Amino acid sequence: MARWELNASQRLADAALELFAERGYENTTVLDIAQRAGLAKSTFFRHFQDKRGVLFGGDALFGQLVTAIAAAPAGATPLEALACGFDVLGRDVFTPARRALTIRRRAVIDAHPDLQEREALKGVSLTASMAEAIARRGVPGLAAGVAAQLGALAFKMAYERWSDPGNTDEFSYVARQALGEVQAAVPAV
Amino acid sequence: MARWELNASQRLADAALELFAERGYENTTVLDIAQRAGLAKSTFFRHFQDKRGVLFGGDALFGQLVTAIAAAPAGATPLEALACGFDVLGRDVFTPARRALTIRRRAVIDAHPDLQEREALKGVSLTASMAEAIARRGVPGLAAGVAAQLGALAFKMAYERWSDPGNTDEFSYVARQALGEVQAAVPAV
Repeated sequence: MARWELNASQRLADAALELFAERGYENTTVLDIAQRAGLAKSTFFRHFQDKRGVLFGGDALFGQLVTAIAAAPAGATPLEALACGFDVLGRDVFTPARRALTIRRRAVIDAHPDLQEREALKGVSLTASMAEAIARRGVPGLAAGVAAQLGALAFKMAYERWSDPGNTDEFSYVARQALGEVQAAVPAV
Repeated sequence: MARWELNASQRLADAALELFAERGYENTTVLDIAQRAGLAKSTFFRHFQDKRGVLFGGDALFGQLVTAIAAAPAGATPLEALACGFDVLGRDVFTPARRALTIRRRAVIDAHPDLQEREALKGVSLTASMAEAIARRGVPGLAAGVAAQLGALAFKMAYERWSDPGNTDEFSYVARQALGEVQAAVPAV
């Protein structure tokens, strides 16, 4: 996709990651990011609360995951429904074209404790979203919570493996594999 | 235990929670906290990085949990070892005497998104500590990770139930019950 076809929020996120890689997170201002994206500073603040927010704009991810879990076949187990959700993330969010940016994003977050806090909170929200989506399929609350905990572990494994610089597999493949490994480890606890 | 027998870090945390409850988190300064605890501001900064840190000083919790998991009987399953860890938390950290402070702490954190971020990161660290402690018992890494995810869910349930104003049960009882419920829900995923 050509750069100018991307929406403003995505352009700002891409510009931010470029700048963070070039000159560091601390040495990049919101104005720098807006200018690199060819947008006004005010546009930045329509999309993100602060500089930190530009790395955590992906609330679309939550909505797509929840929708896909709801749309999984009626007979699917909670973990199978999660796998359907991960398939959609692989198709729409963690696409091969976005892998390089994800690698840069991880490097920035790994270097800053305050960004790790925000990432941790996002992980908590993601787990809660998965639990709610599974419960809405008629699964009792606690079983939905357990499935979401296992799903969160598989998601973390998949995200790390997929965004490893040496990886060549697609996200949905990596995620289904991680989910299978987690499920296989359950009887050992 | 009389107030003056508590160590400085605990006195500061208690004073902070009193002040947050009286005048709000925003309207309390580090100096206010130190004065209420009868200590110098410099003492505060020897124990905590900033005002936020005073709510998250409990790294002793991690050490005690890890030690107790290591000390669980050799034949204990990963979840049984976690239950032994929760027993020790109930004996040394989440004691009946500290329940009122915990309730206040929760109220402050629930009202501030930036504190929720720090709490989320602490949850991630706690889960990682549990996983490491279980793996050190000879449990394969992934099974240890799964047990820690289930343990984290049980811990969250137990912490919320125990610090509910209407609760009268001890933490270790509540935690063992939560762990049992989580374990019983596993086959449904």
